[in-house]
Amino acid sequence: MKIYLAGPDVFLPDAIEVGRRKVAICDRHGIIGLYPLDNSVHLAASDASRQIFHGNEAMMDDAGAIIANLTPFRGPGADAGTVYELGYMAGSGKLCLGYCNDPALYADRARRFTTVTELDGRLVDAEGLTVEDFGLPDNLMMIHALDLHGVPLVLPRERPADVWHDLTAFETCVKLAAARLASES
Amino acid sequence: MKIYLAGPDVFLPDAIEVGRRKVAICDRHGIIGLYPLDNSVHLAASDASRQIFHGNEAMMDDAGAIIANLTPFRGPGADAGTVYELGYMAGSGKLCLGYCNDPALYADRARRFTTVTELDGRLVDAEGLTVEDFGLPDNLMMIHALDLHGVPLVLPRERPADVWHDLTAFETCVKLAAARLASES
Repeated sequence: MKIYLAGPDVFLPDAIEVGRRKVAICDRHGIIGLYPLDNSVHLAASDASRQIFHGNEAMMDDAGAIIANLTPFRGPGADAGTVYELGYMAGSGKLCLGYCNDPALYADRARRFTTVTELDGRLVDAEGLTVEDFGLPDNLMMIHALDLHGVPLVLPRERPADVWHDLTAFETCVKLAAARLASES
Repeated sequence: MKIYLAGPDVFLPDAIEVGRRKVAICDRHGIIGLYPLDNSVHLAASDASRQIFHGNEAMMDDAGAIIANLTPFRGPGADAGTVYELGYMAGSGKLCLGYCNDPALYADRARRFTTVTELDGRLVDAEGLTVEDFGLPDNLMMIHALDLHGVPLVLPRERPADVWHDLTAFETCVKLAAARLASES
């Protein structure tokens, strides 16, 4: 079983090493982890971004499941590239898993970046745009996609000291995927 | 032809009115626009977020295409729920279109929210995380998904004064979708 390992991990300074650790964890549970940076792309090429896209899409098409790292990235919610990939895999009928190393609710996360006030019974940000307030950690589309197309979001009880390198919640996802596959075979 | 109208428009104070305007534009071009708020959901219900998810997914499954509003939302990039839906439609093999009322490059958008510096030949933010620098307006997965699964991102030459209510780029997407459908039939 191959699983696509999506996440903003690819933007870390030690992105390659984090990918190696993730693939090794998968290996210990009998799963082949496909990590985006394993695609060989010449970053200096004029069509580098397109090559990366095609490499990632080919990996997703080759995988039977996704484990998405939905830890907030440069804002209150998950990384857009990762979220796109989660949607792509859900639309493709693949098994969807995800984790997030920040268990805070979305409305509380939003408060770190903007002033959140109540107006006419709804929460709004400084621009007057509604802040989702369903007691969920992120946008409802991702949270319920995991419920419906795979396994509910895996969250640590407390935010780990190093959200980008603590792979406990990731390993929980790998175990859940391995158990699901064992029960299906 | 039914098109799913995705976007953070649903978070605007006048979300319902914006939806009506979008559906009316579709209608003028012979297209049925499906707007998420047309689902009837009791927001006070304990499972309101799940009802919204199911309503949106049913609309996406019913539609042959998506027009995603990828205007930056509460950060440098597109709204996560919208991006999830774009991925879902791409994975489902549907026609994908999108527009963005902010033509700025992603790296420049990131500078509005964090300090961006150069380190070892790459751009990084204040946390040391890589800032994508491919000359694209947002994460490469969404931009190239549109190229490959539909029509390249529609951008205005200049940011309109009211990014949330100017529907010029949206109407361009509707026209492009209508033309594509006419050429296929």
